[in-house]
Amino acid sequence: VIEVVAVDADDTLWHNETLFELTQERFRALVAPWADVEAEHLDAHLLRTEQRNLAHFGYGIKGFTLSLIETAIELTEGRIPASAIQTLIDRAREMVSHPVELLPGVRETVERLATTHRLVLMTKGDLMDQESKVARSGLADLFERVEIVSEKDEPTYRRIITACGVEPGRFLMAGNSLRSDVLPVVAVGGNAVHIPYAITWAHEAVEVVERDGWWTIDDISALPDLIATLDHRD
Amino acid sequence: VIEVVAVDADDTLWHNETLFELTQERFRALVAPWADVEAEHLDAHLLRTEQRNLAHFGYGIKGFTLSLIETAIELTEGRIPASAIQTLIDRAREMVSHPVELLPGVRETVERLATTHRLVLMTKGDLMDQESKVARSGLADLFERVEIVSEKDEPTYRRIITACGVEPGRFLMAGNSLRSDVLPVVAVGGNAVHIPYAITWAHEAVEVVERDGWWTIDDISALPDLIATLDHRD
Repeated sequence: VIEVVAVDADDTLWHNETLFELTQERFRALVAPWADVEAEHLDAHLLRTEQRNLAHFGYGIKGFTLSLIETAIELTEGRIPASAIQTLIDRAREMVSHPVELLPGVRETVERLATTHRLVLMTKGDLMDQESKVARSGLADLFERVEIVSEKDEPTYRRIITACGVEPGRFLMAGNSLRSDVLPVVAVGGNAVHIPYAITWAHEAVEVVERDGWWTIDDISALPDLIATLDHRD
Repeated sequence: VIEVVAVDADDTLWHNETLFELTQERFRALVAPWADVEAEHLDAHLLRTEQRNLAHFGYGIKGFTLSLIETAIELTEGRIPASAIQTLIDRAREMVSHPVELLPGVRETVERLATTHRLVLMTKGDLMDQESKVARSGLADLFERVEIVSEKDEPTYRRIITACGVEPGRFLMAGNSLRSDVLPVVAVGGNAVHIPYAITWAHEAVEVVERDGWWTIDDISALPDLIATLDHRD
C-alpha cells in the first residue's frame, strides 16, 4: 500500500521549461547583432557554460542568468554592450515573478490525492524561487511537507523517505524527469511514476505503461487510479 | 530545561561577511576607472540595489553578484566593459568555493553541546551554497537537522520548533543577528542568545549580559555554560 505520494513541481505541476526557453529565444535575438554565430552554436555554447557553472551556481534563474551573461560576453568577445547585460538582469527579475501556470488536471488530481494519501512536494532549485512558486500555486496547503532540495539523488530520497517515517515500498514519487524523479527512487526501493512534460499533440486516451520497475503515464490525471491499482495489488 | 539548541551558521559558526566585504573592496577598484564616484556613494548605490533585488533574488552570492553587475552598469552609465563584468562572475565562482573558516572555539563548543542537547543548524541563504558550506565545515554530523530557510521570521521559527516536537520554551537559538536570530525567536516564546560578530579587540573575560528576554555573549565558547545555568534555573 502506498502511504506517501511525492510529486515534483517544475514541469510536473506547473510550466517552467517554457519560461526558460522563451528567455533563451530572447537571448539569441539580443546577442545576434554583436556576434556572428548561428543559433545552434549559440545554444551549444550556452549549454556548455550552464554545465560548467552547475557545480558552482546550481539550478535556478539566478545561475541561469549568470550563465547567459557569461555566454554573451564570450561569444561576442566582449563586444556585448552593458545595456544588453542589463536587459538580461531585468529578464531575471521578470522570470522570478512570472505567474505560476498549473498544468491541466493538476489542481483536481492533487486535491483528490490529498483525501487519500499523505502528500509531499519535492522540488529542486533555488530555495526562494521555489518557495515563492509553491505559495503562488495555491496548492501548498494540500501538502504535508514541502522539500526543496539541491539535488534529487539516492541519498536525498533516502533522507526524505526516512523523514516521512515510512518504508521505501510505501513511498511513491511522480515527476517529469527520469533522471531526477524516477531512477533514484527505484534505486532506493521506492515506487516511481514518470509523467513526461510537453505532450503537445492531442491524445484521446490516457496511457499507462509499466516499465522496468516504474510506470509511465502521459497525464497527471491518471495518477490517482494508478495508485489505487497499486494499492489493491498488495 | 532547554532540549533543542539551534545555531546560525554564517558569521556565527564561520566567517562570511568578510568574504563579501573583500569582494566589495575589489568591486570598488574595478569600477573606479569607469565612474567618477566616491567610494561612499558607490557603497550606498550598491546597498540600494541589493535591497531592491532582495525580494527577487534573495540572500546569497548569486543575488549579490547580480546586484554588483547592475550597480556597475548604472554607476558607469553603461561604460563598464564586458571584461570587468566577467571578472565579477569569476569572483562569484571564487566566493562559492572559498574555504569555510570556522570562528574560534566553534568546533569545541558544538562538540560539547552535541553531547548534552539536540542540535539544529539553521541558516538563511542560497540552498546549494549553504549545503556545501555545512558539508565542508566538518560539523554536519553533530547536528540532528540542518534547516536552510529563505527567511528567518516568526512563521519560520514556529515551523522549525514544531518540526522538532518541543515547546518553544525548550528551544534556544544562538546567532549573530538580532533581527534574524534573536527577536523573532523571543516573539514566538523561545529562548535566544545573541553572539555579535567581529569582536576585533582583545578581551580577557567572556561577558554574559541578560537583555530584555534574551542574552548576549561575546564568544560562542560561553554558550554551554549559559545553557547549563538556564537548565538549572528551571
